Amino acid sequence: MPSPLPGAGPRPLKLTLAYDGTAYVGWQHQARGTSVQQLVEAALAEVEGRPVRVHGSGRTDAGVHALGQVASCEIWHTIAAADLARALNAKLPPEVRVLAVEDAWRGFHARFDAREKTYEYRLRVSRVSTPFLGRFAWQLRPPIDVAAMRAALPAIRGRHDFGAFRAAGSRAGSSVRTIREAEVEAGAWPDDGLEIDPGAQRVAVRLTADGFLRHMVRNLVGTLVEVGQGRRAPGDVLAVLQSGDRARAGATAPPQGLFLVAVRYEPGPTDRPNDRSR
Amino acid sequence: MPSPLPGAGPRPLKLTLAYDGTAYVGWQHQARGTSVQQLVEAALAEVEGRPVRVHGSGRTDAGVHALGQVASCEIWHTIAAADLARALNAKLPPEVRVLAVEDAWRGFHARFDAREKTYEYRLRVSRVSTPFLGRFAWQLRPPIDVAAMRAALPAIRGRHDFGAFRAAGSRAGSSVRTIREAEVEAGAWPDDGLEIDPGAQRVAVRLTADGFLRHMVRNLVGTLVEVGQGRRAPGDVLAVLQSGDRARAGATAPPQGLFLVAVRYEPGPTDRPNDRSR
Repeated sequence: MPSPLPGAGPRPLKLTLAYDGTAYVGWQHQARGTSVQQLVEAALAEVEGRPVRVHGSGRTDAGVHALGQVASCEIWHTIAAADLARALNAKLPPEVRVLAVEDAWRGFHARFDAREKTYEYRLRVSRVSTPFLGRFAWQLRPPIDVAAMRAALPAIRGRHDFGAFRAAGSRAGSSVRTIREAEVEAGAWPDDGLEIDPGAQRVAVRLTADGFLRHMVRNLVGTLVEVGQGRRAPGDVLAVLQSGDRARAGATAPPQGLFLVAVRYEPGPTDRPNDRSR
Repeated sequence: MPSPLPGAGPRPLKLTLAYDGTAYVGWQHQARGTSVQQLVEAALAEVEGRPVRVHGSGRTDAGVHALGQVASCEIWHTIAAADLARALNAKLPPEVRVLAVEDAWRGFHARFDAREKTYEYRLRVSRVSTPFLGRFAWQLRPPIDVAAMRAALPAIRGRHDFGAFRAAGSRAGSSVRTIREAEVEAGAWPDDGLEIDPGAQRVAVRLTADGFLRHMVRNLVGTLVEVGQGRRAPGDVLAVLQSGDRARAGATAPPQGLFLVAVRYEPGPTDRPNDRSR
């Protein structure tokens, strides 16, 4: 067992992670199935020589992916941060990668200190679904009216009660959140050599907010897709939001198109004087 | 059961298929495990109402993918070709897609009539492996010397005995093949929104030949990668080829980077006058 630093408490760490969520029950521990949190805790425990508790910035649901999940923990081991990233990656399955380990300020907590999160939801629009993207996009047939989807975005930007887009049966607590950015990007699917339809389109819904309710991104995307398919008018999104009624929103978009892209934090107490950027 | 066309034999068909080979034992039937051939035959049998035998252009090994595998079969059913493609896709798992069904000339056989095949092997070169490409690329750490790999290509272009690059224990028969095109493409990994390392490189080995021996592409790529890693000189590839000795070639590259891109055929007897293009 590693020795504690003399006269010091454990080291607070910030971990940045990417993962393919397909095979997992989500970020967070569940009664059954493997969670990403559990894998990261097991890898850290091997290094540390005792159990380590890891806190994520928030849950990601089963099948949802991360390009930049952030987690916090404390360890006594004095291994250099970059070496710890390599050591963890050697123990984790290839579907879970530690992109960075940084020493954090004392008391840093990935969930409580998170100020802003960005999610991206990827749609592939083509007459033929591809076998190569089933895990990483929601595949839809054309046409999708991107202009109509964009016309619905002003209604959700800003501070609102998003209760209508919260998972049914979700627990109590405020459902007011502030969406700071909401964009629909669209273009040809980038050619990585695997595209089987030259006409395939990539449509990505990108949302940044101070926080998200359970299923909020997937319920917003499900509703926006119904707008894109002409099954609702763009103005209907505002009506659903104002109603606060989950039953009026669209179906929940499937998990495989969703990526937690980034989590942003205020500068901590120790680095605040030098770092006013985000 | 569908009625045969009066006075006619069964309809010869050409099927073009894409698949993610990860979960399968390969294209061809095996004693254990699920083959792509078996899935396509089962889907066709449902449409036809009796067993249908399907012939592929060749095997692809377990874990190897296809962007354009070609298969032939004969059916009595009079369903339009485009409708048959849709019907098959409705029955096949999402990892196997029928891209096209065309009526072929009588006697068309996907294996015996194939004139040329193109394979592509994808390498992702980055200090950090990505969780999103484990099924579809061989992930390697830099540096990879692409110029050195290219310098080895002239040795393998043209008509040679490729016995040194044939799977050990492969059955008898000529090991002479003609490689018509051999290229190494290299550049930044195309950004499809999932890249976790802006410095990631895509290196693709693309080979076109009149046919390939078992494991030939993967053994050539394994050897070329050793050249790219500086573990062999480019000129060593010629020496290995001339030796005819499998033991002198590099390790077999793993299956997940390999894609059967296309199979080309001579125009058939019925369409020969009108179609001289490939």
